[in-house]
Amino acid sequence: MVISYGPIVNYFKGQNNLVMKILIIGGVAAGAKTAAKVKRMLPDSEVHIYTKDDFVSYSSCGMPYYIAGDFKDWQNLIVRTKEEFEKSGIHIHTHMLVTKILSADKKIMIKNTDTEDWQFQEYDKLVIATGAVPVMPDFANIESEKIYTLRTLSDGIELKKGMESSNHITIIGGGYIAIELVEAFVKNKKKVTLIERSPFVLSMLDEDISSLVQDYILENSDGLVKIINEDTVSEIISNDKILDIITTKGYGYETDMVVVASGVKPVTDIASDAGIELGVTGAIKVNSRMQTNLSDIYACGDCTEKVNMVSEKPVWVPLGSTANKEGRVAAINIAGGAEDFEGILGSSVLRYRDLNISRTGLTEKEAIKSGYDAVSVTITKRDKAGYMPEVKNITLKLVADRRSHKLLGAQAIGCGDGDKRVNTVSVGLLQGITVEELIDADLTYSPPFSTSIDILISTAQILKSKLN
Amino acid sequence: MVISYGPIVNYFKGQNNLVMKILIIGGVAAGAKTAAKVKRMLPDSEVHIYTKDDFVSYSSCGMPYYIAGDFKDWQNLIVRTKEEFEKSGIHIHTHMLVTKILSADKKIMIKNTDTEDWQFQEYDKLVIATGAVPVMPDFANIESEKIYTLRTLSDGIELKKGMESSNHITIIGGGYIAIELVEAFVKNKKKVTLIERSPFVLSMLDEDISSLVQDYILENSDGLVKIINEDTVSEIISNDKILDIITTKGYGYETDMVVVASGVKPVTDIASDAGIELGVTGAIKVNSRMQTNLSDIYACGDCTEKVNMVSEKPVWVPLGSTANKEGRVAAINIAGGAEDFEGILGSSVLRYRDLNISRTGLTEKEAIKSGYDAVSVTITKRDKAGYMPEVKNITLKLVADRRSHKLLGAQAIGCGDGDKRVNTVSVGLLQGITVEELIDADLTYSPPFSTSIDILISTAQILKSKLN
Repeated sequence: MVISYGPIVNYFKGQNNLVMKILIIGGVAAGAKTAAKVKRMLPDSEVHIYTKDDFVSYSSCGMPYYIAGDFKDWQNLIVRTKEEFEKSGIHIHTHMLVTKILSADKKIMIKNTDTEDWQFQEYDKLVIATGAVPVMPDFANIESEKIYTLRTLSDGIELKKGMESSNHITIIGGGYIAIELVEAFVKNKKKVTLIERSPFVLSMLDEDISSLVQDYILENSDGLVKIINEDTVSEIISNDKILDIITTKGYGYETDMVVVASGVKPVTDIASDAGIELGVTGAIKVNSRMQTNLSDIYACGDCTEKVNMVSEKPVWVPLGSTANKEGRVAAINIAGGAEDFEGILGSSVLRYRDLNISRTGLTEKEAIKSGYDAVSVTITKRDKAGYMPEVKNITLKLVADRRSHKLLGAQAIGCGDGDKRVNTVSVGLLQGITVEELIDADLTYSPPFSTSIDILISTAQILKSKLN
Repeated sequence: MVISYGPIVNYFKGQNNLVMKILIIGGVAAGAKTAAKVKRMLPDSEVHIYTKDDFVSYSSCGMPYYIAGDFKDWQNLIVRTKEEFEKSGIHIHTHMLVTKILSADKKIMIKNTDTEDWQFQEYDKLVIATGAVPVMPDFANIESEKIYTLRTLSDGIELKKGMESSNHITIIGGGYIAIELVEAFVKNKKKVTLIERSPFVLSMLDEDISSLVQDYILENSDGLVKIINEDTVSEIISNDKILDIITTKGYGYETDMVVVASGVKPVTDIASDAGIELGVTGAIKVNSRMQTNLSDIYACGDCTEKVNMVSEKPVWVPLGSTANKEGRVAAINIAGGAEDFEGILGSSVLRYRDLNISRTGLTEKEAIKSGYDAVSVTITKRDKAGYMPEVKNITLKLVADRRSHKLLGAQAIGCGDGDKRVNTVSVGLLQGITVEELIDADLTYSPPFSTSIDILISTAQILKSKLN
């Protein structure tokens, strides 16, 4: 069957004829989404994206798979080219660094990083979508060209070139990007040393889960990967083409290149300079309409603070899926609509070779930190009927609140289809589902897809017993 | 990583010491589950399963995959052997047909079908789990040994043997089992003619969806499959080793064997003879504790009527996953606990080669029939980032109520991971999720698993526009 890309009817098109000048700072996910959506809704308005980078509208999340060689051309990562934007009437200005927001005058100050010229642009509405940048550890001679980060598309293209001429690569950090890069490097038969300050990689998971992930990585890395936990890099010494790594605990070795993947921070400097309020997490504070405290200034994407819909607390979780949704909500509100972004659940998924790793809501440690009397159950079960040839295992952890019996979160790992179960929980979390209610879920069953009582239901049944 | 089958702690074990004699009629899914669970909860009680068949506790749903040759040994389908039951103190009586329930005396009358002996057994609690049987069409010489059904494990073993000595097989009916058998027969390079009275196979789906399924089957069957729609078999004439098929519309051809898969009906004869109330669907009426109208008589599994949790109307949807859950609920209540089975959502999934087909809640036609002002959107989108090598398409249909904006159901087909989206919706349906609320769902995103805005969210966004 050829399933065509069916027409997605744009019900908003030309709904009203507001004519405005809309400036957007940043154009990766949130900025590009805002631009595209607002231009469709207000076709007569002027829409500009300013970015200091080389590219707009690309999938950052896809870069590890480009580096791995899962596809050959980085241009596949471009969601919409500059030419396509211009054709739809959206003006793209690359190598243009916005240095100041003059909110009283409704102007921004922009530096052309090629010519060093300056200019001012007026706006009716301004959207800050400046994203996030890597946190650079505080070690010596960070200037070496053998030290990479992975944030922009240009970073990704450079990092792949660097990988190709290296034999041994050090990754500092053990989060999502770090693990995706381990996969990419192992696929390219590179030796990898990963240095992570926590006892296990993926410290955003509970340790009963993250320890299993770390075991899997070590056992499925063709002998190429070494993980150093509970240690940090204290010094990097550049010796011609080789880097000497020295850790805080005194371990030393040589490596060909280093990738710093020890976290990111929101880009908020021009916003806070302009008097835009930041939240407790340090990211830009916005309401559910994506408005900042200054009138006609919106912010969306990785530079903004979000609300965790389970704990109802402010959090900062920068993710591409959220950025896209926030961009859409900002655009609708700018265009005179009324749309709210209610928050996030911290849902995420990543792959390491055949292992799927996913989470939603709160982990047990996050739940305890948020003040819940958390009760959890972790079980391992087959993802489909045991007699099916493609059967795999999943380990699922559910966390609930002892008092209300409300589900707080789920984590799943395994070579089986775990993220399916986590997404199922995430919709329940939206509405405050209890463990008892989850047991009533009528999930699809057929031997190639699940066991007759799915692991999600089994785990909820055991959790219910534990709660009572 | 070796993920072991972790210990599932049995919190119920020996919770109380009720000592009863519990008789269970039928032992496939619901009956076997009830027996196992009640014996664990009441270890001192006497538990007996009576069945007229050869086997107990097996996966009927797995039989098409056994026939296909996905695994070699039908014994893999056995969930728990007779010996394992006996070892845990549960007595299994095969070839024992229960012919009468004497509820006033709390006795049942049983015929040994091998010896033709009769006996009576007293019970404290009786569980009816008699399941369903194929509906046999009303055509001539149904006695031919070349005409098969697929219900019991013995049927499955015979059907596989029949297939192996046939070149051309006719399937009457186009439901789940029929389509799973088409896959099995095509895998074994058999020619198949399928005769379905509806305009397309899988009439439990809306026709915009089922027509795509039928196209896929015809295009992915190695030229072996012919589907005759809007016609029925009027006569079968047995000519030595060949069967002549004649349809109502006058089409005639020769075939080697016939599988009748045109639906099933609940087995309710001994129940209704005993004064047990049947529901409007013709299946046994039970409350949420799985109790019939007669005291100490429970019923569960395919022989019982269920409640659709969306329409809140009685329905009869016989499925293995539901049978297992109902068996568990019956057992807990028999053992003195208090557990409710709230109903079903009609969630189901099946595979035809690489195509996944799933549904939950109400289809559009069911919604209209239930009195809703139904609004629907169907879109096709990629299941993961477009640049990932393993990207596939999904077609998703969401149905909502124009008045309340509540979601009513979802259907998904495609070579991509559609059932994941359907399960996600099914948990939302449990709690009456609106289209607007679904848009807030925070689903996991990573390029190997979904697009940055998942098809589920895109479809909900368009549906929202259509509702407003």
